[in-house]
Formats: sequence, C-alpha cells, structure tokens
Amino acid sequence: MASHSLFTPPAPGRSPDPALAHRRGEVTVTVLGRDEHPLAGRDVLVRQTRHAFGFGCIGFDLLDHAVGASEDPDYDAVLAEAWLGLFDTATLPFYWGRFEPEPARPDTDRLLAAARWFADHGVRLKGHPLVWHTVSARWLLGRDSHEVERLQRERIRREVSDFAGVIDTWDAINEAVIMPVFTAEENAITPLARRMGRVETVRMAFEEARAANPAATLLLNDFDMSTAYECLIEAVLEAGIRIDRLGLQSHMHQGYWGEERTLEVLERFSRYNIPIHFTETTLLSGELMPGYIDDLNDWQVETWPSSPEGEERQAEEIERHYRTLLSHPSVEAATYWGLSDRGMWLGAPGGLLRADGSPKPAYTRLRNLVRGEWWLEPTTLRTDAAGRLTFSGFLGDYELSVDGATTAFTLAEPGAVDLELRI
Amino acid sequence: MASHSLFTPPAPGRSPDPALAHRRGEVTVTVLGRDEHPLAGRDVLVRQTRHAFGFGCIGFDLLDHAVGASEDPDYDAVLAEAWLGLFDTATLPFYWGRFEPEPARPDTDRLLAAARWFADHGVRLKGHPLVWHTVSARWLLGRDSHEVERLQRERIRREVSDFAGVIDTWDAINEAVIMPVFTAEENAITPLARRMGRVETVRMAFEEARAANPAATLLLNDFDMSTAYECLIEAVLEAGIRIDRLGLQSHMHQGYWGEERTLEVLERFSRYNIPIHFTETTLLSGELMPGYIDDLNDWQVETWPSSPEGEERQAEEIERHYRTLLSHPSVEAATYWGLSDRGMWLGAPGGLLRADGSPKPAYTRLRNLVRGEWWLEPTTLRTDAAGRLTFSGFLGDYELSVDGATTAFTLAEPGAVDLELRI
Repeated sequence: MASHSLFTPPAPGRSPDPALAHRRGEVTVTVLGRDEHPLAGRDVLVRQTRHAFGFGCIGFDLLDHAVGASEDPDYDAVLAEAWLGLFDTATLPFYWGRFEPEPARPDTDRLLAAARWFADHGVRLKGHPLVWHTVSARWLLGRDSHEVERLQRERIRREVSDFAGVIDTWDAINEAVIMPVFTAEENAITPLARRMGRVETVRMAFEEARAANPAATLLLNDFDMSTAYECLIEAVLEAGIRIDRLGLQSHMHQGYWGEERTLEVLERFSRYNIPIHFTETTLLSGELMPGYIDDLNDWQVETWPSSPEGEERQAEEIERHYRTLLSHPSVEAATYWGLSDRGMWLGAPGGLLRADGSPKPAYTRLRNLVRGEWWLEPTTLRTDAAGRLTFSGFLGDYELSVDGATTAFTLAEPGAVDLELRI
Repeated sequence: MASHSLFTPPAPGRSPDPALAHRRGEVTVTVLGRDEHPLAGRDVLVRQTRHAFGFGCIGFDLLDHAVGASEDPDYDAVLAEAWLGLFDTATLPFYWGRFEPEPARPDTDRLLAAARWFADHGVRLKGHPLVWHTVSARWLLGRDSHEVERLQRERIRREVSDFAGVIDTWDAINEAVIMPVFTAEENAITPLARRMGRVETVRMAFEEARAANPAATLLLNDFDMSTAYECLIEAVLEAGIRIDRLGLQSHMHQGYWGEERTLEVLERFSRYNIPIHFTETTLLSGELMPGYIDDLNDWQVETWPSSPEGEERQAEEIERHYRTLLSHPSVEAATYWGLSDRGMWLGAPGGLLRADGSPKPAYTRLRNLVRGEWWLEPTTLRTDAAGRLTFSGFLGDYELSVDGATTAFTLAEPGAVDLELRI
C-alpha cells in the first residue's frame, strides 16, 4: 500500500475572468488548396460543431428514446431535440441497485445501445457512479463485507470494461465524505467504507476503474463543499491516488448560491490543480426547499409546481451561474441535473422544460449563451489575397467548407492562433 | 516526503460501559515485611493519590499565583485550592502572539516556573498549542511565507526543548481543518497552511516537536466534529504522521450536546484506535449562545451572568457529560476550559466557580464524582492471616502505609489484580 504522495502545494490561485478570454481563440486561418497554394478571395463557410467546455445534462430520460423503446414518442422526440439543441455531454445512470437489480443480470446491453445513440449524436459521455452507498444493490445486504468488496471490485471492472471506447469518463466514487457514516438508508457500501476507511475505498474505486480502462478519466464527486471535502481530497492525494477531475455537486434546491459563494467554492477547490467539473446542478423555478432541511431527500411534497415568477428567477440565476462557472479557468464542464420537470429528482421544478415539454425561460436563456453568445453560427468569410481569414470563437471543434469540400479542426488553446488548413 | 501510511482499518468499535468496569481494578495486595514474611492482621492505610484518567483544566489563571506574582492573592489562593481539589492535569498557554509578543523575547522563564509549580503539586501538564492561526504573533505579518515557516519550525523546537521534562505533552497543532481557509482574522499562519496544504502543515508541527522531544505525547486538536476532521485524520495517517492522541474540543456555549451526540462523536472518532482527549469543554450556567452563531467569537455581549437556574442545569449537564466521557473506553482525559467565571473566554458564565470564587453546584457535583464516587478516600483495611487485603478502586496512583512506612503503587489495568508490596 506504500505510495508516493500526489499532493503538491497549490500554485497561486487562478483568477476568474468574466470576459472569458481564457475560453476564446483569435484565429487566423490560411486556407490552402490541394496544390498548396493559398485560396485567395474565396467564400469560406466556418461553423462550430462542439464546445471544448462540456455543457452537460443527465441523459436518464432519453434512454428509452435512444434505444427505440419510448412509451411516449412525441414527448421524447421533443425532449431529444431540446437536449441536443443545448447540450453536448451526457451523464448516464449506473446506480448499482437499478443497473443490476438481480445478481449477474446487469442492464449492459440497453445502456450500451443508449450510450451509442448519444455518441452518434456527437455527445460526450460519463457514467455515474461506480461506487455509492445510495441506490445500492439490495441483494448485497447481509453479505460479508469482504464479499461485498469483491463484488464491488468486479462490478467496477465489468462496467468500465464493457463500456470502454463508448464511456471513458466515470464518477469513480460518489460522496465518499459521508459514505462511512451515512445512516439514512441501510446499505452494504457504508459498512464496507467503514471497514476500509474512506481513502482505501476511494483507492478501490480508482484502481479497479484504472485497471479496466487505463485511458479513462476518473472523477471524485461530492456534494459536501465544506472543508471536509478539501480534507478528503488531500487525504486521497497524500495516498498517491490520481484524481483526474474533481466533481462538485450544486443542487440548489434551497436557493441559488450566488456569485460570491460559487467563486469562494471554486477558489478553494481549484487549489489542487485538478480540473473541476460542476457535475450536478439544479436551480428551481418554483418554491425553494426550506434551509433547515439537511438531507435534501427528506423533503417530500405532494406537488411542487413551477411558477411564472419562479421561472423568471431561474432564468436569471442560470445565466448568472453559468457565467460564473465559465469565468473560472479551472472549470471545464457543467452538468445540469435534468432537462424536464417530468421525472425530476424529488419532484422538484428544476427542469429547463416544463413537464409538458415546453421550454421555460431558463432553457432559452441558457441556449442563448451556449449556442448564441458563446457559439459561432455558420458564418461565411472571404479569404484575403494571401488566402487568410480571421475569426474569434470559443474553444472547441469547427468545420470549414469551401466549394463543398469540408475540413474539421479543433481550437484548443486560447489567444491568437495561426492555422493552415488544406482543403 | 515518501512515508508509510499509518492508517489501519479500525477494529470493531469500542462499546461504552456506564458501569465503568474498564476504569476499575479489583485489587488483592499481599503486604510483606522486610523479611519477606506476610504482615498478617495489621491495619493498613490505603489512599489514592491521582487518577489514571486525566481530569484536566486550563491553568491560565493560576500562572501569576504559581510564580508568586499574584495581583489578588486571596482570590488566587481560593482558586488554587479549588483547582487542586478537583483537577490533576493542566493545560498551559503557549499562544505564540502572547508567548512571544516581540521577536526573540519569549515568556519562557515565567511559564517554566509556573509549570514547575503545577508539577510540584502532582499535576500533569500539556502545552497548548504549538501551531495555530489565532492569537498568532502579529510581527509575523508581512513576512514571506518561507520565512514564517522557518520561524514556526524554530519556535516549535524551542518551546518543546525548553520545557522537555516538565511539559512532555503538546497540542502540536490546533484547528488544522479550518486553518488554510480561515478568514476571520489576518494572520501569517493561514497563508502558510494554504501554501503547504493541511497535511504538510500538520507534518511540520509533529516532526519538529518529535525531533525536539522524541518522548513527547503529541495531539492533533480540533473543534470541528464533522466528517471534515475524520477526513483530516485519515489524510494525516495516510501521510505516515503518527498522532499520539486525538484532541476533541467541546465548547458547548450553544447547549449541552447530550449523551446521544457525545457518544456518536466518540463512536466516529474512536475508530482510529487513537486514545481520545476531550481537550476543551465548556458548559454554561447562564443563557446559551444562539444556535445561528457560527464562529463563537462573533458573540459579543456586555454582560453574561450566571443564574441560579443556569447553575442547576450546568451541574446536571456536567455530571452527565463526565459520566458519558468516562463510559467510553477510548477517552483518557477531559479538560474543562476555565475554573472560574472571572477571565472566562468570551465572558461566558462557563466556570465552575462564580467570578467571586464561590463554587457553583457544578463544581461540587463534579468533585463528588472525581474525588468522591470515583475516588478512594484514605481507608484503613486489616490484612488477613496471609497478609492480604482487597479493595476496589479506580485506575491510578495509590499509597499504602503501615506503621508510618509508606509505599506507592500504580493500578494500571482494569479487572482483578494481584500485587505483592514490600514495606
């Protein structure tokens, strides 16, 4: 178990930049023909095909649609169009208790088909989560802790191997801060984490996933934004476990954090020099959950409607939240936790669509950023005498077309970039 | 910095025993004369001289008295008598900002004299703290972080060396959970902890203290009883840093924790198989601080009187608290944070004496336990024909006298013990 500490004293904090210069390139492209001569004075169509930043959403509600088993095809078609019209990164569900409700009968085929549908639509994928105490398999209860460990290790290797090449990003472990002292629901993972300790439980998740797919990007994910999560991260790094990405949840059922708190959280967690994913964001368009509720799962209500005032507030807040996240150089993805109010966690009005599939103002507002202000619509530019054209765009993938021929390129670094493209 | 992890999966939790069998010995002493023959049918005086459990209190208010510089000798004499009549373990103040208010002029001589006074009265000693962000030296401000680190390391070595043999127990570092993100007061230690990270800051404290006094008992001490402290402990152990004792604060200005919470805290923190010191306990005999106050230091009041109802409540609570602490086998010391209301932290009525030095009910109640129910008063026992006598007593130090000759012994292990003593 000896291992070299991966904890390094943090570099000076990265400062947020609301102008987002760190996300933009100023591109000069010299367009060459097949004969290596510049194509002067030609109309060139430039268009962006994807953001470098991961604009994510859970894809749970589209699984049936993706595998052609929709029970409400019209609604699901609307949902799919709205999803793909805004997002480019999906989180897919691998809750053990639902993925393998009976031993040795995992839902692999269906999930793999769904994952491929997303990938075919240019969507990046993440599996969530490989280890968690909630929604754990009931059939693990009563088994010896060492047997549970063996099964947990096997399950990690199985999922990561089966989905390699389609899903190469995983929430390796979810909510390890509370895991060994979690009491709200009997489960077999808490006793395991209690026996092993948090760090060895995290090590188990990362080492099994890493062994099954050495190219995988592995996240440590938590809702606890207190010093507890900082201490856990430091423990994990001290133990020599490589964390590829740091997952921060932000279910704001009790109210929008605001810029100050969000930046304070980002400042603290960016000190570890690990890129940050905002993995689970919710903002309500209805009444807020009272602040005295400690575990969000304890709030059970008959109905929780979306309201016109709530929808206006949500739209304001989602714009502020995404502008704040993008302003911080350490954030490289943000996943919204549910597109539509239908089937939302806790029945909360946290969707960007209403339950009937119609867009709330927040959907439009976020789309106006992601596929508007921050997006290069297909644009025709004329090359100069040297075959050059210039444009400014967000980091991401682009296509350039001349006379029906198209070439793709990636804008990977901010600032001034010179490219030569042959077409 | 490579080091072997000291984190070991915890053994099954230790169960509390309200009957305190784990703190009692059933002793059979065979008393032998100089000629090795049993002294049959003789009257033997047995008395306890100290508890194995550390019944502690801060000794801050007795420093002047101890060095013969009291400004109120009558009051201080009352205080000293009350202190020594209940406690056997003192915490002495080594707050850097007060101990060394100007560079290179530490308060060593006075503190050493005071410490010797306590030791001469049979009192065990602990120094508090070697590293802390609060009450830090103001003259460190503006210095480069590496310079602060050098000075901090030197200060640890200096104090631990200068006091070795008199003070061999230290709070090596205080409140490391919040240290790097502490914002309430500008200080030079927070930026240091921020640069180094928590674990390396803890390592600095422990390695310098250990180097200066390899026999020292070193504590990690914190007020944060959340999962954050668990995660920090796991990080420190993963980093191969030996924690001799775990310090848990329990300033209950916002209300007594109650048995359930106290045992829950003990259960979680006893998993690390490190003996626990309850290092800082306060219970009020007046109005409680409102629960919405986050940092206790933020509560500033003109007067905060002790009240008759409050004193009854405090007496009840202190008995319940100490019975709970002693019931848990992992707890080996409990330090009360201030004997008298005069000079109490925050001006709170948390003393066991009123500001005029008169005992509150809590003093009497605690004394009735510590030097009553849990104590062996001088007792005359007659040896049987084989020179044997039996008694039941709390673990600790004892004296046995026959005909004016006295011998000392230590009852170190619970359960049945057979001893032979020559006198």
